Amino acid sequence: MKLPDVQAHRAPRPFRLTRVGVTGVVKPLRVARHGRANHLVGTFDVFVDLPAEQRGTHMSRNIEVVNRVIDEHVRKETASLEDLASGIVHALLERHEYAAEAEAHVSADYFRERRTPQNQAPTLERYQLVASATATREGAERRTIGVEVIGMSACPCAMEGSRAILASKGHAVEGFPTITHNQRNVATLIVETPAGHSVEADELIDIAEASLSAPTYELLKRGDETALVMHAHENPRFVEDVVREMLHAVTTRYARLPGDTLVVARSEAEESIHKHNAFAERTTTLDELRS
Amino acid sequence: MKLPDVQAHRAPRPFRLTRVGVTGVVKPLRVARHGRANHLVGTFDVFVDLPAEQRGTHMSRNIEVVNRVIDEHVRKETASLEDLASGIVHALLERHEYAAEAEAHVSADYFRERRTPQNQAPTLERYQLVASATATREGAERRTIGVEVIGMSACPCAMEGSRAILASKGHAVEGFPTITHNQRNVATLIVETPAGHSVEADELIDIAEASLSAPTYELLKRGDETALVMHAHENPRFVEDVVREMLHAVTTRYARLPGDTLVVARSEAEESIHKHNAFAERTTTLDELRS
Amino acid sequence: MKLPDVQAHRAPRPFRLTRVGVTGVVKPLRVARHGRANHLVGTFDVFVDLPAEQRGTHMSRNIEVVNRVIDEHVRKETASLEDLASGIVHALLERHEYAAEAEAHVSADYFRERRTPQNQAPTLERYQLVASATATREGAERRTIGVEVIGMSACPCAMEGSRAILASKGHAVEGFPTITHNQRNVATLIVETPAGHSVEADELIDIAEASLSAPTYELLKRGDETALVMHAHENPRFVEDVVREMLHAVTTRYARLPGDTLVVARSEAEESIHKHNAFAERTTTLDELRS
Amino acid sequence: MKLPDVQAHRAPRPFRLTRVGVTGVVKPLRVARHGRANHLVGTFDVFVDLPAEQRGTHMSRNIEVVNRVIDEHVRKETASLEDLASGIVHALLERHEYAAEAEAHVSADYFRERRTPQNQAPTLERYQLVASATATREGAERRTIGVEVIGMSACPCAMEGSRAILASKGHAVEGFPTITHNQRNVATLIVETPAGHSVEADELIDIAEASLSAPTYELLKRGDETALVMHAHENPRFVEDVVREMLHAVTTRYARLPGDTLVVARSEAEESIHKHNAFAERTTTLDELRS
Repeated sequence: MKLPDVQAHRAPRPFRLTRVGVTGVVKPLRVARHGRANHLVGTFDVFVDLPAEQRGTHMSRNIEVVNRVIDEHVRKETASLEDLASGIVHALLERHEYAAEAEAHVSADYFRERRTPQNQAPTLERYQLVASATATREGAERRTIGVEVIGMSACPCAMEGSRAILASKGHAVEGFPTITHNQRNVATLIVETPAGHSVEADELIDIAEASLSAPTYELLKRGDETALVMHAHENPRFVEDVVREMLHAVTTRYARLPGDTLVVARSEAEESIHKHNAFAERTTTLDELRS
Repeated sequence: MKLPDVQAHRAPRPFRLTRVGVTGVVKPLRVARHGRANHLVGTFDVFVDLPAEQRGTHMSRNIEVVNRVIDEHVRKETASLEDLASGIVHALLERHEYAAEAEAHVSADYFRERRTPQNQAPTLERYQLVASATATREGAERRTIGVEVIGMSACPCAMEGSRAILASKGHAVEGFPTITHNQRNVATLIVETPAGHSVEADELIDIAEASLSAPTYELLKRGDETALVMHAHENPRFVEDVVREMLHAVTTRYARLPGDTLVVARSEAEESIHKHNAFAERTTTLDELRS
Repeated sequence: MKLPDVQAHRAPRPFRLTRVGVTGVVKPLRVARHGRANHLVGTFDVFVDLPAEQRGTHMSRNIEVVNRVIDEHVRKETASLEDLASGIVHALLERHEYAAEAEAHVSADYFRERRTPQNQAPTLERYQLVASATATREGAERRTIGVEVIGMSACPCAMEGSRAILASKGHAVEGFPTITHNQRNVATLIVETPAGHSVEADELIDIAEASLSAPTYELLKRGDETALVMHAHENPRFVEDVVREMLHAVTTRYARLPGDTLVVARSEAEESIHKHNAFAERTTTLDELRS
Repeated sequence: MKLPDVQAHRAPRPFRLTRVGVTGVVKPLRVARHGRANHLVGTFDVFVDLPAEQRGTHMSRNIEVVNRVIDEHVRKETASLEDLASGIVHALLERHEYAAEAEAHVSADYFRERRTPQNQAPTLERYQLVASATATREGAERRTIGVEVIGMSACPCAMEGSRAILASKGHAVEGFPTITHNQRNVATLIVETPAGHSVEADELIDIAEASLSAPTYELLKRGDETALVMHAHENPRFVEDVVREMLHAVTTRYARLPGDTLVVARSEAEESIHKHNAFAERTTTLDELRS
């Protein structure tokens, strides 16, 4: 029995729509990196635009596209989430013949083996990957890959304050770090590359993690814990410092990328002395950073 | 004792920062609307930009600004959250003498009395307000006021499908709504006005709520519940329809606003037949909508 | 260099503690079910009790235990999360020689292949598993396995109301379902078994899903969507009905389990006509259910 | 027109239900404390039990009860959320004539003026209140009042580790606090009192806040910030210590309360060196604590 295609009807209010699609689609994924399979659980948002005259998109086609592209990429041992997002936007344009643009976002927890600072014990650390792609029917395409890294930041200002207070009480406190507040800090680094260029998510994780006062680890025996605390306090950083360290590393490492590459660097500190957070961000292009 | 001002030091990595400030600052507020005081709990994010040479902003000044402006506005019986945000960005520029731009966001639950569809019983309904303001030292300012409204959407496509199925079984199903899936739908409507112009949040709530298949109510006796279900099914709407209804109402009601007024209209349906959501959005200007 | 063991010091305030440990530990997992490997991302909370005299537990031992037990279970191709939790509590008692009790909780998204109602198209559906185990040094142990299933519930009351209204307008509305509100409904079913007994999570998912008005699917083509809406409206259910369907199925299917088996059945409907949820729950034993 | 009362029908599966009701009902409230009105936004969950034979509860009565009791308490200038919860459970039993038990929970953000540690500047700090009441038709009633306080904890173990390391490098580090990790810590203290007894939420907040290494403040000028960091490091505390400080204060301050008063004390540290949290909890009675 043929059911009516209400989506294909004329829209009662003919306005063009910028983004129509599905959000919060959760799927198991496998991406292969450096010969190692990573099993991830990805959350997808996918959209196309909709011309003024058409009443609705065919939402189920979005899910078909996501399913099909994931399956193909599993078989092809795809290396990256942004390749997956790119595959999705091209397939969206194919299936939604009325659409001029398509957009796909995917985020997933991701794990990497690290070594603890003193004992060099292996530990599996959690990071967040965020990737996206947009494409137009005319062929323009951009891909974004980003990471969120949970680390630690120690405040440089309160450290100098505590040093001054301790010195005023007669303590010899030069030559080593004094107390300050420190806290969980989420460093985010996102790079949007033009077609033909790419960056490696693992590299972005390394940059973001090194920009913090210290990494965090799941498992720290007593010697490791003390070494980490020493390291963080020898590198006290404001949220502003964390962002600028990332920007510096990006300009240094990505000399090969074109000037119109977009960069977002962000640091949010869950302040241990406040109930609110401290925040710093730069949204820019490589051209601006290089000048 | 004078403590060192580490923020005023030269930045080790001299990159300009786009946004530096605090997020998640929660404060009780009072705004007066139409002679009625509303006690809200607002969540604030406030930022300024930071020149390349300066190591840090003085974060505590942000909180001082928010506190002072809230106090002034309580005394002045301020009518709106966007006025509050505007007061904050001007004070931020005053206190952060090195900043060229300032930005403030505030969101809060907000309650309005409604009448149930059949019994006309009074009920207090919850909405979300989202306001923001940006200002530059050169004097450019923009204000944004937006609302999030939880209502109900009923799917037009599955209704036609069920009608066809029931008809094929010999039932006379013309002239009244047949079954379909319906669900919670969050309609968002945001308007950014140039200086000298404003819109009323209550009006945006009315527009967004009327764009859904039906409003939702906290308290529905049996007759009200049935009347609401009937009303929703007599107005089946896709997320696309909900957005377009909002766009239509905005163009009709805001003929007085300039063409560069920004409008964001969005509908997200928490689909009762899926584990994911359906989504539609238009980001545009009044100029585009009018053409 | 030997660092001081501050945890082993005498507690300044010697009160016994009920639960001391770590929460929010996220780890990739592999469990084998019916010859098929499932790659999950588990979130763990693990605790032991602490005697009054001892100042602190050794928190890093909790992480060592979780890591070691996960590794062993991956090698052993463990079939279930509750086995994993059980392995963890035994290892916790070993490593925390001062503890009398241990407790472990783990939750994870889990995916199963389903077939759509009409086209029988394959679709991968998401469920939530929640498992736990407790053990005492004297050897008492209990294991819990539970599931959260997102489905759809359609209200029986508003359907009878709409039928009465339509009939009063002269429509012939007997013999088929009339309109009502329907919505996402999260059905939860948890079983705590004494040592030597177990239940299969897949079976609990089947029970919970069948207790709702209808399952939800990720991908529904038009015929599937209509069939699902018909099915849901032919099985209108209150949250109370959903819970009782689960209780009925549990008593029928688990005749083999002892009477002191604990059962929690819960249904929460994200009401499409309200901004709040409807909720029903039964906490009981099989003995009580059987009487 | 009389619509059918489907809830009053016989249940198809006659199992008793433990809790049936509504969750996530959000309402503006006013409570008067010490002559000062507090405007709060409360979130309510309310339930009754349901006998085996009855198909459904009348959900709208729950909302009517909540609305009516809030209105009465606003007029009576009610002092506490637990009084409000108590009023609700009694009204629930009245309206649900078939119920044997009723239960109400309410939580709300709450603000109190504090003074900063050094400058004694006024600051409005945010706390969370959690209250509940249960009552049976036979007249048994219990009330619970609890608080969640965000403060700071500094680790005693890593401080001794850093002191040992610094000493081994020849620094004189006796007589003042050395570096350690510190973080946001949520201290929770809940007391369930039998009928005729009560505790003051403000007092519980004072106890929980004093049990942490230091309070947190919204606004800290440089001198305040340094004073706070010094204070926290002079009171380094494990999560275990935080819980035991609360237990000690409760036994000292509430000698007047009966032995069967229930107490829950909890501390969760959002570890700055880990991506997971540290957790400690005691669930007990005053009788146990006193022995």
